[in-house]
Amino acid sequence: MPEEFSLGRLFSPSSVAIVGASTTPFSGGHQFTRFLIDHGFQGKLYLVNPTSSEIFGIKVYPRLTEIPESSVDYVISCIPAGGVLSLLEDCGQKNVKLVHLFTARLKETGRDKETKLQFEILEKARKLGIRILGPNCMGIYYPKLGLSFNHELPRESGPVGGFFQSGGGAGEFVRYAALRGVRFSKIISYGNASDIDETELLKYFTYDNETKIIASYIEGVKDGGKFARALALAAKKKPVIILKGGRGRTGAKLALSHTASLAGSVKVWQAVLKQYGAIMVNNFQELIDQVVAFTFLPPITGRRVIIAGGGGGKSMVSADVWEEEGFELPELSAEFRKKLKERVPELWDWVRNPIDASLFQGTPVVDINLLEWLSNEDGSDILVANLTQDDPLPNDIWEKVLAANFLNSTLAIKKNGKPVVCVIETAEIGLAEMESWKWRAIAETRRQIIDQGLAVFPSPERAAQALKKLVDYWAWRESETELL
Amino acid sequence: MPEEFSLGRLFSPSSVAIVGASTTPFSGGHQFTRFLIDHGFQGKLYLVNPTSSEIFGIKVYPRLTEIPESSVDYVISCIPAGGVLSLLEDCGQKNVKLVHLFTARLKETGRDKETKLQFEILEKARKLGIRILGPNCMGIYYPKLGLSFNHELPRESGPVGGFFQSGGGAGEFVRYAALRGVRFSKIISYGNASDIDETELLKYFTYDNETKIIASYIEGVKDGGKFARALALAAKKKPVIILKGGRGRTGAKLALSHTASLAGSVKVWQAVLKQYGAIMVNNFQELIDQVVAFTFLPPITGRRVIIAGGGGGKSMVSADVWEEEGFELPELSAEFRKKLKERVPELWDWVRNPIDASLFQGTPVVDINLLEWLSNEDGSDILVANLTQDDPLPNDIWEKVLAANFLNSTLAIKKNGKPVVCVIETAEIGLAEMESWKWRAIAETRRQIIDQGLAVFPSPERAAQALKKLVDYWAWRESETELL
Repeated sequence: MPEEFSLGRLFSPSSVAIVGASTTPFSGGHQFTRFLIDHGFQGKLYLVNPTSSEIFGIKVYPRLTEIPESSVDYVISCIPAGGVLSLLEDCGQKNVKLVHLFTARLKETGRDKETKLQFEILEKARKLGIRILGPNCMGIYYPKLGLSFNHELPRESGPVGGFFQSGGGAGEFVRYAALRGVRFSKIISYGNASDIDETELLKYFTYDNETKIIASYIEGVKDGGKFARALALAAKKKPVIILKGGRGRTGAKLALSHTASLAGSVKVWQAVLKQYGAIMVNNFQELIDQVVAFTFLPPITGRRVIIAGGGGGKSMVSADVWEEEGFELPELSAEFRKKLKERVPELWDWVRNPIDASLFQGTPVVDINLLEWLSNEDGSDILVANLTQDDPLPNDIWEKVLAANFLNSTLAIKKNGKPVVCVIETAEIGLAEMESWKWRAIAETRRQIIDQGLAVFPSPERAAQALKKLVDYWAWRESETELL
Repeated sequence: MPEEFSLGRLFSPSSVAIVGASTTPFSGGHQFTRFLIDHGFQGKLYLVNPTSSEIFGIKVYPRLTEIPESSVDYVISCIPAGGVLSLLEDCGQKNVKLVHLFTARLKETGRDKETKLQFEILEKARKLGIRILGPNCMGIYYPKLGLSFNHELPRESGPVGGFFQSGGGAGEFVRYAALRGVRFSKIISYGNASDIDETELLKYFTYDNETKIIASYIEGVKDGGKFARALALAAKKKPVIILKGGRGRTGAKLALSHTASLAGSVKVWQAVLKQYGAIMVNNFQELIDQVVAFTFLPPITGRRVIIAGGGGGKSMVSADVWEEEGFELPELSAEFRKKLKERVPELWDWVRNPIDASLFQGTPVVDINLLEWLSNEDGSDILVANLTQDDPLPNDIWEKVLAANFLNSTLAIKKNGKPVVCVIETAEIGLAEMESWKWRAIAETRRQIIDQGLAVFPSPERAAQALKKLVDYWAWRESETELL
């Protein structure tokens, strides 16, 4: 069985032991115990600590070997690095298949002694037939099994899988992408990659049926050639989105001290990713935008957009940013103008794409009509709905009439199957705004639109940037298919 | 008295008449009446409408000329375009100095008849010695006087002034920038610019003592040469930030149908703005980021940043985006390492800039120490505090210990006067998150930091982009001074 398939078994343990389980609030042993209890891990959970007898009502074993069952699939090590070699001996006795080393302060310190210890750990694990995840990482988030590496992450599964060299980055990615409606197959935080590395993980996710979209944060690559070959295969099967950390001078120095990295400059990365059809993003927000786009939008290869909503200024700047990302704004169709002529004869001839929705104030045409008509249009590939809150209306009026329109509009655009991109700006609200009807309505409307499975972006430029990369990807896939 | 000084008098009316005042919810006449009442306009307010006798308890005059006082400084016209010529006659009798035409559907329709009417209005106003603001605009937001063009805008004044060709853009700019702590001297929405135009407004704000930072949204310029000369003067006095709408093919077509624009391509704009030291931004979010930077940060000309906070991934990507904007990350000083060595001997030698704050978990050093020490450093020009919420701690623990640290840290960094940039990500929260302790704590912490007068950005890249333009501007100002 090829290496990459076996990870699937390792990531689906039926029993987990947390070694170093603890009630000390800031300790990893406490946190992982909480994560697995709170997320309802579905297998057997063992806690190990020589100085406790019970944690959260669960019996604690003084040592891994004291667990009565003959085997434990997966061990989460929350003990200091100095104890890992002897823990591995115990793991050998208990037929452990995978050890996640939350344990840190090894090679990443840049010190000789710690680097040597990391190597010895790997050697011993190999001899015992145990795979190592980490060290210096958060491990596995696999909602289907109730495995988690942070608190209050979604319990439902979804199509996004991936691997993150940063544990903090992985946690924040899941938390913030979840607020945009994204759900996950499994996310692996793999840290120093002493054993299981980016190439093996990429291969694994390439063939993982639960994963339709691959997202990753990578600081360094062990073997550039192997990784490139894996990428060539992966990107032809599903979108592979890569955030490369350590692109600048400082980052290159830091990454080097983490792993024996492909020193390769950012230009090498850009060239390789482009050649093999992977999608490069530059920061965590772009990574989230990109998984939102691939999660909620179908394969789109055309670049004609109709933009509707917001006043003249917002429409104009939206048109600018979409055009700057390579999209075109076609003229409005004769059919659409005909509908306008019937309903708003005073406006029909001078409304244009982008559609300044403020022109329709005081007419019988409301946003819902515009969006419904546009979603029937054949002359465009993407409909962009700028759902804006810049109407100069006092709250009490807004409350009575606009909120309903705002909500119904999104129902209207959903039903025709036209790819729709919603733009609703996010604001830095405080507690006072949380008490305001209007901000609550905006928040709730956004959530309802997201819950309907629509792609929502917090600004026109972030929408346009993510859509450009989506269309580039599917256009590349199409061209690859034609070559065959 | 030069033209540009007289606008100051026009924008400070002691009496305002709203012509077309109304109780019809969606009408402009209703909205402007509410804006001025709700914001507490400090002068005399007259309402004019032939079909009402009282609105919100205020007497309504059937016609402007029926107002008993001999003069009215400022008229807001909310009547259809067809009535404006005869309204101007009445304005002449009442010694009106400035008419704001909220009235629209004139030249922007692109139709001959309406274009001709706009011209006739201007001709008549000139004959009567009346200045026109608009048509097709929201007019004046001048918090000191209680003049407003939208609901619930800040009542306190501040250093940011500006002129916006889009009324919706102006309103949303004020509302969203206010959430970041920005306050305004006055913001003028000037629409079709039939009389008072971008060049006159730029000159006015150049000499307006209440305005320290100029922000603008411009679609087209009437006279490119005049505008460039005004810009040359303005940018040497204060930062001038320009969002040019209509940069693409679609926008150029649209802008052309609005005003007799300087057709000039985006390249011409970029060249002119660069030559004269003005700051070009590409969307409304960048415009807000830029006024935040200039409002809360002193003139900085150095590019050395120390980045602290967040885990390894966030630090790494922060370093990347700051370097990509031309900043440098110096090594940490010997003095700083000495402090680390005393307190965290296990870490002192391998902590680097950017500082991965997660390394300090479980040590006696907390964020507040790091930020306090760093704010005493001479070896950097800017301190970037990534205040992150990616700690993998359950809510109850986070609540007990981290929130206080988070708040105290910002107090610590404020007190040494070192330029500090705070990065706190904004998320797309819904009502459920608004009820969560953690999201409320984040929101309230952000608000408190903002209220202390610190620059807060929602992502590292938006911070770095805004700071680059700020440093570029002050470096240019410095070089200009040296030339003298």
